[in-house]
Amino acid sequence: MTRSALGRSTPDHVYVRGHDLTDLLGTASLGDVAYLELTGRLPSAQESVMFNALAVTLVEHGLTPSAIAARLTHFGAPEALQAAVAAGLLGMGDRFGGSIEQAARMLQEARDDAEPRAVASEIVAGFRARREIIPGLGHPVHKPQDPRAVRLFELAAENGFSGRHVALMQLIAEEASAAYRRDLPVNATGAIGAIASEMGMSWRITRGIAVMARAIGLVAHVQEEMEAPMAADIWAWTEAEGGSENRP
Amino acid sequence: MTRSALGRSTPDHVYVRGHDLTDLLGTASLGDVAYLELTGRLPSAQESVMFNALAVTLVEHGLTPSAIAARLTHFGAPEALQAAVAAGLLGMGDRFGGSIEQAARMLQEARDDAEPRAVASEIVAGFRARREIIPGLGHPVHKPQDPRAVRLFELAAENGFSGRHVALMQLIAEEASAAYRRDLPVNATGAIGAIASEMGMSWRITRGIAVMARAIGLVAHVQEEMEAPMAADIWAWTEAEGGSENRP
Amino acid sequence: MTRSALGRSTPDHVYVRGHDLTDLLGTASLGDVAYLELTGRLPSAQESVMFNALAVTLVEHGLTPSAIAARLTHFGAPEALQAAVAAGLLGMGDRFGGSIEQAARMLQEARDDAEPRAVASEIVAGFRARREIIPGLGHPVHKPQDPRAVRLFELAAENGFSGRHVALMQLIAEEASAAYRRDLPVNATGAIGAIASEMGMSWRITRGIAVMARAIGLVAHVQEEMEAPMAADIWAWTEAEGGSENRP
Amino acid sequence: MTRSALGRSTPDHVYVRGHDLTDLLGTASLGDVAYLELTGRLPSAQESVMFNALAVTLVEHGLTPSAIAARLTHFGAPEALQAAVAAGLLGMGDRFGGSIEQAARMLQEARDDAEPRAVASEIVAGFRARREIIPGLGHPVHKPQDPRAVRLFELAAENGFSGRHVALMQLIAEEASAAYRRDLPVNATGAIGAIASEMGMSWRITRGIAVMARAIGLVAHVQEEMEAPMAADIWAWTEAEGGSENRP
Repeated sequence: MTRSALGRSTPDHVYVRGHDLTDLLGTASLGDVAYLELTGRLPSAQESVMFNALAVTLVEHGLTPSAIAARLTHFGAPEALQAAVAAGLLGMGDRFGGSIEQAARMLQEARDDAEPRAVASEIVAGFRARREIIPGLGHPVHKPQDPRAVRLFELAAENGFSGRHVALMQLIAEEASAAYRRDLPVNATGAIGAIASEMGMSWRITRGIAVMARAIGLVAHVQEEMEAPMAADIWAWTEAEGGSENRP
Repeated sequence: MTRSALGRSTPDHVYVRGHDLTDLLGTASLGDVAYLELTGRLPSAQESVMFNALAVTLVEHGLTPSAIAARLTHFGAPEALQAAVAAGLLGMGDRFGGSIEQAARMLQEARDDAEPRAVASEIVAGFRARREIIPGLGHPVHKPQDPRAVRLFELAAENGFSGRHVALMQLIAEEASAAYRRDLPVNATGAIGAIASEMGMSWRITRGIAVMARAIGLVAHVQEEMEAPMAADIWAWTEAEGGSENRP
Repeated sequence: MTRSALGRSTPDHVYVRGHDLTDLLGTASLGDVAYLELTGRLPSAQESVMFNALAVTLVEHGLTPSAIAARLTHFGAPEALQAAVAAGLLGMGDRFGGSIEQAARMLQEARDDAEPRAVASEIVAGFRARREIIPGLGHPVHKPQDPRAVRLFELAAENGFSGRHVALMQLIAEEASAAYRRDLPVNATGAIGAIASEMGMSWRITRGIAVMARAIGLVAHVQEEMEAPMAADIWAWTEAEGGSENRP
Repeated sequence: MTRSALGRSTPDHVYVRGHDLTDLLGTASLGDVAYLELTGRLPSAQESVMFNALAVTLVEHGLTPSAIAARLTHFGAPEALQAAVAAGLLGMGDRFGGSIEQAARMLQEARDDAEPRAVASEIVAGFRARREIIPGLGHPVHKPQDPRAVRLFELAAENGFSGRHVALMQLIAEEASAAYRRDLPVNATGAIGAIASEMGMSWRITRGIAVMARAIGLVAHVQEEMEAPMAADIWAWTEAEGGSENRP
């Protein structure tokens, strides 16, 4: 059986998650329809502010490996903009989008039958024992705090999303900073993982928020590559470094 | 030189198109930031309504080939949600997203030194002579009108985007209906191509609006596939039809 | 530093892994050059037979989810054959190509300081305790034996690749069959994982043999889709099942 | 109807293009099975030499944009080797694989009712009038001749593939060199397009030969990236050039 609850059409209607699409046009924003797609209902005012903020955080981050891959792909295949964007999205895996997913999973799978600080301490001890990196903490560039995390937590407090998961994420940062004797504040991916958990989203789909947001940024990178190309320069530098004269 | 005007970061700031990202969080919606990424400035109220409506139209259209491909890919590679979404986006090419692009191109390359109906008539005659399909007209399911196009043109009129390109698209529909002696109203992709042209977007990037919007819908399809899988049924049906017992 | 040992060119030469490409043309087959690319040297006669057989096993398996996704993508984006093939490859993940990788990893990480049957028994007990599926065993269609595994093990014996890893894989099948009280012979992916291990390939790259081989099959599926299309039928069936009339 | 002539299986057999797969194992090389997949029959000795040479030419070309995109994708998504290879393949479009396709199309659509040099002259004049680049001629690095083209034409002569299409390609090079008053010899993509045409392949599938061959090279690049990573350096250089400190 192949019935989807997401969309269907008849000669005079298109339905999206049970809403007549024409009722959404002019009234619901793109971010609100993304929320509708993921949850089955339009967001409240607070949910709208919060969800849009999570997604907006992830749209653009400059010349990331993902954006460079999209530009190089456009260089080779200018006939298919969609393929350049797809190539960029393929890099939103375990290392990038994945840290949101891992943070959300850590929070959603945490035991809730103990005092929160004890839970945080236990989680940090577990990562240390397994010699694994705790997801959602620290940042090589943004110091002492990740400005995106600070702002997202403010919005979470203002809009009613500063619950158990956000508190636990912050306690994990405190316990980790103490255990490793260095500053490990919550970064943007930790804040997003925690707040998405507050909003009731499964950790399994949190990587998807990064994917949908970054698709927007990648379209903009391909547009910029059309107008002010840099792919050939990246290629030339890479080859020159590699000692080749390998231009086809 | 590899300088991008889209984004950059410093230890305490992330900039998106010249805006401090933390100023956008909580104030700018995802759709408005998409507009910012594509045009370099935040939209006016009218531009926001119109651009979000264009994008919302394209988020979800049920079990399209693109959504099915995303689901089948998730079935084989559950470790990489981003790859399932990317596989779906790869089908947003000439046949689907492409008709928006072709409609916008037709309008943006139309001569503007003649009376609009004469231009429309000349365009229709050109397509007929080349035996090519006129982009943006007619629909196999939505009859007599595509409800999405009707609503988008209403919004265009209300928000100041019913200019030369929209008028020409509608004249082309009239001239084509007369020439082919059947009802060929503007469909959703024709309306989007015309209105994006009114908003000053190059036809080269209009396919990108479809790509960014459909990325949202595809994330939702992968989420649904995780919860209520249908990929195995589609595979089984295809193989049974093909006379094989080819399950690995 | 970005120096690759794989290829470089000068005005009058192209080098592949240190060989002048023109020396390879007419003398080395595609499969042998694949072996060269992966290992840094051309294969011996025995290695050539064995490696080509591994790869040939994985070229074509009919209307798999991967082949269907490639065909659906070609339907939407006929301008970009490479994107249809890429969409198909994206499904060669943990569920499909992954089982080769998992089998090879299981064998390569097995302890070698104990009697082989004891090692096999310990491995089977470990999978049972973790309630995980043992990779490379059993098949829903091919019974009682997977004919591909039988033939590959014959070739391994004839060509000098029936060593420790192949023996361990077969012992694991015996121990698993005993433990689960049903027939669990080595399947094609188990045989390939074992033989690739005999050939000295890291488990991390074994999925790549599936990817390179299946790329060939997917090109053939796209060619067949051009000549005898089935994507529209798959789409129509899926939508009819889903109760929609959702053709754009 | 969804019947494929490519492959099917039963409990004790897997068939590839009508051949029992176990009969191919140990007897047919990967390149020969690629030929079988594309044409429906195993190659003769001459066809085998020629087809394998065409494919081998396209396996590896160093740090191309496609290889760089694959490496950057692996950096972000190490969990999915198949996605890194797919990202690389997505760049094998109009600019790269496409020139083979365009050369083959030019030859296959040439009129055959006139003297070959007159046809070549007419084709060159057509490209000049349309101000389009003639596919398959000249090379920015390989001068005065592309060594791959020279060797491929030798093999074509030795194996019986120096027919009408090869002759026309060479005449086009002569006529173009005369018309543009500079040396425009046939390059590798022109030679491959011409020889594939001699072998009876439709121009529509010639890009596929590049795609299947390059998939092999891209697997090797991902393997090398695992062992000797360069993605982070390419990223750092790009960002430093762009004036950002944008490492996440």
